[in-house]
Amino acid sequence: MAKSSSFPHLILPKGNIKDGLYYALRDAILDGRLSSGIKLPSSRALAEMMSISRNSVLAAFDRLLDEGYLLTKSSSGTYVVETIPDHLIQIQQDVAHSKQSKPQPLNINPYLESLLPAWKKQSLPSQGEKMFHVGVGCLDIFPHQLWGKLLTHAWRKSYHQLGESHDPRGYLPLRQAICHYVRSTRGINCNEEQIIIVNGIQQAIHLAAYTLLKPQDQVCLDEPGYDSALNIFRSFGVDVHPVSSDDEGMRIPEIIQDYTKSKLIYTAPSHQFPLGGTLSLSRRFMLLDWAAQQQKWIFEDDYNSEFRYRTHPIQALQGLDQQQRVIYSGTFSKMMFPEFRLGFMVVPENLINAFSLAKYYTDTRSSHLEQVALTLFIQEGHYARHVRKVRKACYERQQALIEAIQNHLADILTVQPTDSGIHLVCWLKNNWTEQAFIKKCTEAGLFVQPLSRYCQHSTQKAAVLFGYAAHNPDEIKENIEKLANMLRQDDNANFAGE
Amino acid sequence: MAKSSSFPHLILPKGNIKDGLYYALRDAILDGRLSSGIKLPSSRALAEMMSISRNSVLAAFDRLLDEGYLLTKSSSGTYVVETIPDHLIQIQQDVAHSKQSKPQPLNINPYLESLLPAWKKQSLPSQGEKMFHVGVGCLDIFPHQLWGKLLTHAWRKSYHQLGESHDPRGYLPLRQAICHYVRSTRGINCNEEQIIIVNGIQQAIHLAAYTLLKPQDQVCLDEPGYDSALNIFRSFGVDVHPVSSDDEGMRIPEIIQDYTKSKLIYTAPSHQFPLGGTLSLSRRFMLLDWAAQQQKWIFEDDYNSEFRYRTHPIQALQGLDQQQRVIYSGTFSKMMFPEFRLGFMVVPENLINAFSLAKYYTDTRSSHLEQVALTLFIQEGHYARHVRKVRKACYERQQALIEAIQNHLADILTVQPTDSGIHLVCWLKNNWTEQAFIKKCTEAGLFVQPLSRYCQHSTQKAAVLFGYAAHNPDEIKENIEKLANMLRQDDNANFAGE
Repeated sequence: MAKSSSFPHLILPKGNIKDGLYYALRDAILDGRLSSGIKLPSSRALAEMMSISRNSVLAAFDRLLDEGYLLTKSSSGTYVVETIPDHLIQIQQDVAHSKQSKPQPLNINPYLESLLPAWKKQSLPSQGEKMFHVGVGCLDIFPHQLWGKLLTHAWRKSYHQLGESHDPRGYLPLRQAICHYVRSTRGINCNEEQIIIVNGIQQAIHLAAYTLLKPQDQVCLDEPGYDSALNIFRSFGVDVHPVSSDDEGMRIPEIIQDYTKSKLIYTAPSHQFPLGGTLSLSRRFMLLDWAAQQQKWIFEDDYNSEFRYRTHPIQALQGLDQQQRVIYSGTFSKMMFPEFRLGFMVVPENLINAFSLAKYYTDTRSSHLEQVALTLFIQEGHYARHVRKVRKACYERQQALIEAIQNHLADILTVQPTDSGIHLVCWLKNNWTEQAFIKKCTEAGLFVQPLSRYCQHSTQKAAVLFGYAAHNPDEIKENIEKLANMLRQDDNANFAGE
Repeated sequence: MAKSSSFPHLILPKGNIKDGLYYALRDAILDGRLSSGIKLPSSRALAEMMSISRNSVLAAFDRLLDEGYLLTKSSSGTYVVETIPDHLIQIQQDVAHSKQSKPQPLNINPYLESLLPAWKKQSLPSQGEKMFHVGVGCLDIFPHQLWGKLLTHAWRKSYHQLGESHDPRGYLPLRQAICHYVRSTRGINCNEEQIIIVNGIQQAIHLAAYTLLKPQDQVCLDEPGYDSALNIFRSFGVDVHPVSSDDEGMRIPEIIQDYTKSKLIYTAPSHQFPLGGTLSLSRRFMLLDWAAQQQKWIFEDDYNSEFRYRTHPIQALQGLDQQQRVIYSGTFSKMMFPEFRLGFMVVPENLINAFSLAKYYTDTRSSHLEQVALTLFIQEGHYARHVRKVRKACYERQQALIEAIQNHLADILTVQPTDSGIHLVCWLKNNWTEQAFIKKCTEAGLFVQPLSRYCQHSTQKAAVLFGYAAHNPDEIKENIEKLANMLRQDDNANFAGE
């Protein structure tokens, strides 16, 4: 009984008595008050000591036995295990106390680590800043009631087949529907086996980097260009060569001449991001020819293909490629809504296995329910109708923004002409810097992006990007007027102050 | 008119006349029948020649002008562009003809490429093989009507806030609900900032490899163990050390002694996959202590934590870690259904930024709608109820399988005892090989896995895995009897043949 007499004073937390005793005993073991090898009082004695039922004590013992804090020796009683060396437990406390003392190096993937400083600074819209967010589609005209019905329908269709989907490429009827759609609207040359459903273009780029590249491989991409693409390639340790554009689009001759070791060319040939240029036909053939001869891969980002307002969509690069060097990618997030994370890739036949494996080892496969709902949305003709409606609305919104800027901000901004996309590039005049202009926008609750965000090497003239698709013409007009008034008041204040 | 007279004979495909003329002209340009620089007939002349309306011709011209096949010279007419060098177009044809001729090296990520041969052979259940698939939960008792309602509810709740979710870690109310749940059920020590919603544990492992490791880094993992984890690490070029288990679970002393350069230890300490062992408390402390001293990372895969039938769940390793070295991961796919691709990670505070960035550059964020529905499912208490129901059903199913095997296959199989998980390991007796037994299973429509699938280096005794959670006791009994009868018939046939 000598040992039981050294039994520490336990404080039971309020609430569940059984769990309370478990935690009290465990803490006593971990902080050394109940040392290794000590014999515990009998469950009956402990119940009496703590004024709780014997069953509660037995339950706590059971759990501690299960977790290895206690052990029973045949008929001689219950002991604290000896196998936890005291110093290990002691360290736990030292550590807890010294937790804040010295910052340690992270010891993570160095390529990804190098992106962290910029990532921490990356601005996202705050609560008040909703206007003009780049990359957001026409949310207000999305047929949300219909979509709600299709979700219900999709679930009813799926639940008795749960456990039967195994293809990492995704839901076959959706792959068939997409195959049919891109063949007719984008001139894509493919069969359903080549379609892989992914969680948006971001995942398509990630999968391409993961599947095709290793550290120190070389990649060319548009400059200015999509900053996430650049960072994804960098996170895989890939050396990135930015390639600028001229009137014919990306300078393909520069790639062929200077970047002969590039393994992959990332490009948005139909609508270069963010400036909106188009790759000329001769350059398309030049790029395809070089890729075929030199066994290079081309990643075609066709993010904006459906947002074309006055002219026929330009045929995808993939459709001209007869050598299967193009990995094509499109998204539904822009046409539907940003929270809808589905897109697709069309991959060359000899890469089907590699991309299936990559998708499987990335996240097994994409959300099934939303794939089924999207299939119904496409098959029943709603998608094509929605695309037409969105095109019309986007064009009106673009015109409203151009008009509002020309009426109210002509002394500061020059609109870059475009007939596609869901944002406008506006060049700053009169020595306005991007920083100064964006500061004003933020004060007005507008989430406008500086062009410099998309430039890694080149020094473009100062410009800002306005996303317009999510706002109706009245909102657009009103917010531009608000911004203009604010700028004018500042001007007056400056005058007054001088 | 000399040039127009050399105008080739165009065949219009049936259907849309405008598109037909576009394709006919484009093909003629691409195959060289309409050569560079040639002047086209006027739209009026061409309309007459082809017997179609002038508007159709103009539309086709417009599109070809847009795409850069044609150009207009001021008031002198429309020409085929000169900038497509003839040899480029020619190559397209050569290529098309020589397409099948010689297989090229793939030129992809060599680490991922090395996994392709095994991937191609990997077996997935075919239409007839549904029984005993490892890793599938209790699909038949999932409350599908309730879930259908919650999906509708979730969509109604979300659609007027579309475009407002920006945190790559996922939907805040879900992260809060999970934080609360794992603190109380798993003893996890965390706040909601540390929770990252991912698309199942597969993505958690992928993100850990992507965030923490680079090629030639070293990792230790369970042997036998989860084959996908092994392959994911290998796909990132990481050197993997398999570590076997004894009565106390994974041999941590071996890691500390032999694999000092390991940067990450992947382990399933509560229920080692597939054999079901538990890591002893002293080894838990040993591992945590070493990781803290040496700045190692531990990936805790807690895939099966909620499938425990008779004993209290074992507290997670993460809850004992006071040095923030553990990356903890759980999934909802097993408790819900395999098509439901949501899981979560709990990451150390100093890795929140790195994992947020990694998730963003992998697929931006997880499916929003299903996150909202899952939040409702948890918050309204349905999840906890479902877990209790599943535990009860799984235990019955496990017992039914054990009984059926003992009654009908005792001469072939010895069941490995376990009180948790959703599969049983059965050791083969009487010189049965895994291959021979699985051949019989396949003939009986059963999708049973060989233990060797999960062994990379060690030679375990022959065994097979039966997943039992998805089938009710009658189905289980019936299918085991069917298999037993088949095996007995074979025996008789063999006798008869002798």
